[in-house]
Amino acid sequence: MTTILVLNGPNLGRLGTREPEVYGSETLDDIAAAVEASVPGADVEFRQTDDEAELIGWIHEAVDRKLPVVLNPAAFTHYSYALRDAAAQLKQAGVPLVEVHLSNPHTREAFRHTSVISGVATGVIAGFGADSYRLAVDWIQRSRG
Amino acid sequence: MTTILVLNGPNLGRLGTREPEVYGSETLDDIAAAVEASVPGADVEFRQTDDEAELIGWIHEAVDRKLPVVLNPAAFTHYSYALRDAAAQLKQAGVPLVEVHLSNPHTREAFRHTSVISGVATGVIAGFGADSYRLAVDWIQRSRG
Amino acid sequence: MTTILVLNGPNLGRLGTREPEVYGSETLDDIAAAVEASVPGADVEFRQTDDEAELIGWIHEAVDRKLPVVLNPAAFTHYSYALRDAAAQLKQAGVPLVEVHLSNPHTREAFRHTSVISGVATGVIAGFGADSYRLAVDWIQRSRG
Amino acid sequence: MTTILVLNGPNLGRLGTREPEVYGSETLDDIAAAVEASVPGADVEFRQTDDEAELIGWIHEAVDRKLPVVLNPAAFTHYSYALRDAAAQLKQAGVPLVEVHLSNPHTREAFRHTSVISGVATGVIAGFGADSYRLAVDWIQRSRG
Amino acid sequence: MTTILVLNGPNLGRLGTREPEVYGSETLDDIAAAVEASVPGADVEFRQTDDEAELIGWIHEAVDRKLPVVLNPAAFTHYSYALRDAAAQLKQAGVPLVEVHLSNPHTREAFRHTSVISGVATGVIAGFGADSYRLAVDWIQRSRG
Amino acid sequence: MTTILVLNGPNLGRLGTREPEVYGSETLDDIAAAVEASVPGADVEFRQTDDEAELIGWIHEAVDRKLPVVLNPAAFTHYSYALRDAAAQLKQAGVPLVEVHLSNPHTREAFRHTSVISGVATGVIAGFGADSYRLAVDWIQRSRG
Amino acid sequence: MTTILVLNGPNLGRLGTREPEVYGSETLDDIAAAVEASVPGADVEFRQTDDEAELIGWIHEAVDRKLPVVLNPAAFTHYSYALRDAAAQLKQAGVPLVEVHLSNPHTREAFRHTSVISGVATGVIAGFGADSYRLAVDWIQRSRG
Amino acid sequence: MTTILVLNGPNLGRLGTREPEVYGSETLDDIAAAVEASVPGADVEFRQTDDEAELIGWIHEAVDRKLPVVLNPAAFTHYSYALRDAAAQLKQAGVPLVEVHLSNPHTREAFRHTSVISGVATGVIAGFGADSYRLAVDWIQRSRG
Amino acid sequence: MTTILVLNGPNLGRLGTREPEVYGSETLDDIAAAVEASVPGADVEFRQTDDEAELIGWIHEAVDRKLPVVLNPAAFTHYSYALRDAAAQLKQAGVPLVEVHLSNPHTREAFRHTSVISGVATGVIAGFGADSYRLAVDWIQRSRG
Amino acid sequence: MTTILVLNGPNLGRLGTREPEVYGSETLDDIAAAVEASVPGADVEFRQTDDEAELIGWIHEAVDRKLPVVLNPAAFTHYSYALRDAAAQLKQAGVPLVEVHLSNPHTREAFRHTSVISGVATGVIAGFGADSYRLAVDWIQRSRG
Amino acid sequence: MTTILVLNGPNLGRLGTREPEVYGSETLDDIAAAVEASVPGADVEFRQTDDEAELIGWIHEAVDRKLPVVLNPAAFTHYSYALRDAAAQLKQAGVPLVEVHLSNPHTREAFRHTSVISGVATGVIAGFGADSYRLAVDWIQRSRG
Amino acid sequence: MTTILVLNGPNLGRLGTREPEVYGSETLDDIAAAVEASVPGADVEFRQTDDEAELIGWIHEAVDRKLPVVLNPAAFTHYSYALRDAAAQLKQAGVPLVEVHLSNPHTREAFRHTSVISGVATGVIAGFGADSYRLAVDWIQRSRG
Repeated sequence: MTTILVLNGPNLGRLGTREPEVYGSETLDDIAAAVEASVPGADVEFRQTDDEAELIGWIHEAVDRKLPVVLNPAAFTHYSYALRDAAAQLKQAGVPLVEVHLSNPHTREAFRHTSVISGVATGVIAGFGADSYRLAVDWIQRSRG
Repeated sequence: MTTILVLNGPNLGRLGTREPEVYGSETLDDIAAAVEASVPGADVEFRQTDDEAELIGWIHEAVDRKLPVVLNPAAFTHYSYALRDAAAQLKQAGVPLVEVHLSNPHTREAFRHTSVISGVATGVIAGFGADSYRLAVDWIQRSRG
Repeated sequence: MTTILVLNGPNLGRLGTREPEVYGSETLDDIAAAVEASVPGADVEFRQTDDEAELIGWIHEAVDRKLPVVLNPAAFTHYSYALRDAAAQLKQAGVPLVEVHLSNPHTREAFRHTSVISGVATGVIAGFGADSYRLAVDWIQRSRG
Repeated sequence: MTTILVLNGPNLGRLGTREPEVYGSETLDDIAAAVEASVPGADVEFRQTDDEAELIGWIHEAVDRKLPVVLNPAAFTHYSYALRDAAAQLKQAGVPLVEVHLSNPHTREAFRHTSVISGVATGVIAGFGADSYRLAVDWIQRSRG
Repeated sequence: MTTILVLNGPNLGRLGTREPEVYGSETLDDIAAAVEASVPGADVEFRQTDDEAELIGWIHEAVDRKLPVVLNPAAFTHYSYALRDAAAQLKQAGVPLVEVHLSNPHTREAFRHTSVISGVATGVIAGFGADSYRLAVDWIQRSRG
Repeated sequence: MTTILVLNGPNLGRLGTREPEVYGSETLDDIAAAVEASVPGADVEFRQTDDEAELIGWIHEAVDRKLPVVLNPAAFTHYSYALRDAAAQLKQAGVPLVEVHLSNPHTREAFRHTSVISGVATGVIAGFGADSYRLAVDWIQRSRG
Repeated sequence: MTTILVLNGPNLGRLGTREPEVYGSETLDDIAAAVEASVPGADVEFRQTDDEAELIGWIHEAVDRKLPVVLNPAAFTHYSYALRDAAAQLKQAGVPLVEVHLSNPHTREAFRHTSVISGVATGVIAGFGADSYRLAVDWIQRSRG
Repeated sequence: MTTILVLNGPNLGRLGTREPEVYGSETLDDIAAAVEASVPGADVEFRQTDDEAELIGWIHEAVDRKLPVVLNPAAFTHYSYALRDAAAQLKQAGVPLVEVHLSNPHTREAFRHTSVISGVATGVIAGFGADSYRLAVDWIQRSRG
Repeated sequence: MTTILVLNGPNLGRLGTREPEVYGSETLDDIAAAVEASVPGADVEFRQTDDEAELIGWIHEAVDRKLPVVLNPAAFTHYSYALRDAAAQLKQAGVPLVEVHLSNPHTREAFRHTSVISGVATGVIAGFGADSYRLAVDWIQRSRG
Repeated sequence: MTTILVLNGPNLGRLGTREPEVYGSETLDDIAAAVEASVPGADVEFRQTDDEAELIGWIHEAVDRKLPVVLNPAAFTHYSYALRDAAAQLKQAGVPLVEVHLSNPHTREAFRHTSVISGVATGVIAGFGADSYRLAVDWIQRSRG
Repeated sequence: MTTILVLNGPNLGRLGTREPEVYGSETLDDIAAAVEASVPGADVEFRQTDDEAELIGWIHEAVDRKLPVVLNPAAFTHYSYALRDAAAQLKQAGVPLVEVHLSNPHTREAFRHTSVISGVATGVIAGFGADSYRLAVDWIQRSRG
Repeated sequence: MTTILVLNGPNLGRLGTREPEVYGSETLDDIAAAVEASVPGADVEFRQTDDEAELIGWIHEAVDRKLPVVLNPAAFTHYSYALRDAAAQLKQAGVPLVEVHLSNPHTREAFRHTSVISGVATGVIAGFGADSYRLAVDWIQRSRG
């Protein structure tokens, strides 16, 4: 059974308390539980960190273990070229990387940069709340099936 | 049983012959059949047109009949503000609109414009080939369920 | 008695239902009736289409018949150079063209382009709701008087 | 009977002598007389100044007396944020402000700035020569009627 | 004998009446006749439309029949990515596409966009009036000869 | 006892009536009284003008009398290079100049220009309402103490 | 007695040795002592880190304990959207956040980005050296009264 | 004998005290005396004001009396479109206008705008200190000779 | 019999060896021979230089002798305003200038500048390899009759 | 007696024939004669070249012989950083360099670059036709007096 | 014997496995060994981290111990102003800092930012693979010699 | 023994006299001698020219003789696309080209263009004064060794 790493960037550990009218009242643990329940055959491993280096390390681990990755880069989306360089190794190794966002980032106009990650991702899913994760895991599982 | 309109913009009727190494060798009919098969309970209606006005008319129909829409705007993604204005009515009416792309548009750098549609879409799914459609239909069906 | 063509672009046939808090609850027919009532001596002909080519054809007709035009280009405002080229013939023929907008387009900041039509218009009237049409027809009638 | 202030910015006192092929040979007094004649029931008060501070003071007066304003900001159009701030009070107070221009400013390409006033105006009328004033006064009178 | 499609975009049906001092007084039929006369062995088929979808359909036809195309995209030059996507199929199929313009578009400074078509064209010929067509047909015929 | 000039630019005499939800309901006189009360040992002289030239003259006076200045340039913030040049003399003379704003100007996105004054100011305080003045006067008094 | 967190970003631990002609010769400890002395009733807690994740963690702590924050983001000012997202929670929770800078950042022209933090700050104080901190703490204490 | 108006904009009355290392220690009166001495046959009339409206009035006077103008617009150089509009009348009337600057403005890089006046000036002389005035007067006198 | 100057800019003497997969394996002499053969009645004079001043001198010669010019400016296309100024004299004298390129320059995206020459050329022919020259000479010969 | 080098860039040898309505009908020799006549005590040496390297060599000579330079860089104004680097040596050596232009370059809007030379020039004189030279030589002679 | 710190940024620990066709198959240890072997008299200390704060700490150590630094900032090149501020202390202390890159970063066009580090580096060496390090160490050793 | 061409662009013949505080007091001959001395086994041939065409010719010679090149393009760095096209032949032929600069060009902010040469260079070495040459020659010799 394939393990799927679901990696989450800065401030996502605050989910459920931060701007619930935008991001919903579910915590990241709630989302993890819901995803696991809805995709029974998958071994989904949720992790979260505010630390860029730790997130890069997890990507390195995924490269070495050849584990597919669902990545919500949160604010790193906009500037972490270090994360991008790490993620590019997944592309080189043929391991799928799905970039997910809870909300539709195209409405956050205050940010001048769009995603620096998308260029190395297999695909992007954005705007479906917690379902963004479920759709990503579902696709990985079927395409690996 | 909800009907879901899957609307496709210019040149997508050529799918399967145009740049198969990028877009795959499936035709739009193949994709329609596959989506219908994989999401059995859904009444999925595939349409395609090269005509901006016809596509706008279909959006108007969806607004009037309150049908959820999966939209692959193809090249209109980059400039059709008329399509955007039509699609904004779905948002106002609370009818979901999912924008899909077969490939990841962030790699088509020759285009200066990014999507003018995303700002009025519920969510965006890009980069999974024909599965982009399946994921979109699947999400609409479950969230309406 | 001069005929005045009042030409309307994409989605304006939806007027009265689309974002009534911005555009009012009057339909295009209501506006046509009100304009005709308030400018009794004018032969005002209202038309609407979502089709760029049809709109261009009407401009060609106006050029040939030398009919003054009131044009609400709607979303075509932002990108239809084809419409602009057609409209430029009115300018060349000395036939007045008044560009009208229901709301003040300077507040729609999401659009990067401003009007590509204004450069060939005799004048522009924006922000007065249905009265934008009445003012335009009124001016044409008096200046032709 | 409502009084309407028609306020004119720098260099408009020179009208009739400055570039008559663009702005016509009518003086501002000629325009005032014509507007008054064509809109008989209105108490129209024309004023002109080259002084930014004096123009701002007149706007303050209009706010206090709740008088609708027709404003031709002339060159101040392009940079007078002080005038804009003054005019914003009219918006706040629900008093109409119509920005007018004799010619179509979209054709004065040498200017890098567009109007800094339009964002706080009720509407904009441009390109009809002296008739720009008449249309503005006419609209105010009717909408107040 | 090879058939060459000569496809013409919006407003070109007005040729001979629109700005004759820029585009000459020849109509499109005059040009067609002149080209046929000067390149006797060619089967040249002239078509014109103001409709983006119809033009795209003709390109699809050329792809299927493997007919070389001379294309004057007129105003579509500046924004029709849908036309570009269609034309890209010619490039993929190894069928020549020559983009032509009657006048030298580098002098039309009001347009911010340059051609979105050129990137998929075999070559570009601009500035020679009706001879732009003749040179294009001549080159196709010889290179196919 | 040092005299501190507190100079206020255009429209600030309207304080208390203009957009109270943004700028509060205190008048400039209220603010002056509050500042004087909270910083007892200071000789604080409040002045206000809508006239760029008069404001420049006051800066000249401050240069000659070597009086520290608290300046709320209001709309002049965005374009008055004349005021900047005047203020630059304070810098040259070693006399402190503190630029204050009632609200945080970084949120007024409609303005394209940021402050042209800050480059010659000793420091900037913004976003604390009337307290912006008190903090500025307090700092000057202590640093001169 | 309210605790106020004074959080300091990368390289500020080097204060007193790094470019003393710009930033003064006081160390961060000197500043902390001076602020505490001048605002006796406040419980001011100074912290410094070069680590983005640690700084984000402190902001999370402030959100949970509802402690007002004085933040000198140092170089993170220019790119840390992760820090901005964390700080936005303070705004949502109604806890004041004052952004401070020792020098006036408007003079550091080599940086293309201005502050990405200011948009979520209550106010900004910059250019007064160590007094920037004292003014911020003083304002928080008084406004919390 | 022709009268030549030498008009000076804001802050130039401070000449001799403001940044003498850049602008020299001569006052405007010193410069006036020197110019008069070196160009004996000319009736040179020096004026200075900080008031945009007054400067505009003087230009109006020059237009009416057809007097050639030497103009040092100082800070108005960068933004006073009102002054530009006034000065454009000189061009229209065939009266020479020479724009002068004491220093070479191309080295003042902090300013984003270059001169908005030059486009309507006969010529520009910059960088020669007080001699900029002498060269301008000399040229006017000879060319009128 | 008219002489036609065919002038070639820097590095074109290397043709046939430099990137033959892009520019073909023909040398410039091969092209000259082929053009002369295919346009028998023309006196075509091919020249090449890497020297900007020499190329300018040849343009001067063409102006004086009123010889039509075919110009491949090569890399000078992108920056030689000196060449442009020289070429503008041909336009002024009514002598045709055809700018040619072997390949389609719209695909060389690394260059930020497009042609600075096209604005003064009669027409442009690009993308047909050596045939670009033949078409240019052919057109000049026919139009000169 | 000081020798003054008057150096002229590309195409200026064509003066008198090229666009005489813009640049006058005087040749460069006519201008040289006129300047020498009007400034009798000066040893003025006129040179012209189309060759960038030769012009650079003359600047080197001026540096070595410490001769003041009047430079009309013509089209090199817009791109020759090599000329700028050469000219910077004059500035370093304290030798005056006056940049002159026959016409006012601020009106040549087609050029995106302004002068790359002005930053190292002592001063700039533009727009007075041949008198631009005379004024430059006159100023050098007097200031060297 | 001088110690030289060779500091390496994020993902460089993956060297030898990540895109070997671009970066070679040598690991960072291989490079360290090769550099030490080729520059025998040097005490070269190689370190690598994915953590921005740790890298900043090493720079602080180099400042305190006055050790010359060879820095390969990897992806931090493009956005870490925190690293830049740390590195600026080396410049202030007169300690050499050489920025190195394995490949030539000018070819990685997807990145919008160029190096934010170079402005505070003594010099830059890029494009020589592992030899970039050797050249840097060699230069430091000789110049410290 | 391999010959290495060391080619130098405009104004570098002035080295030792021009801005010695930036570029050092060594002449180009001094540098040549030092490089030859420090890299004994190399046949290093130094050349310098102010002439773009001559420099291009030397690159052609290097291509034909397959000689590695060290190039200091000086001011041509910023605009000579002709030099770039010539240099691209070295890349195509597999002959190394090292671009060198005496100082770190990232600090010359007045230049808008960065190097147009780097894209075709093997590597870049900048900021080490005359040692930039030595490092380049050293690397070529070893990598050819």
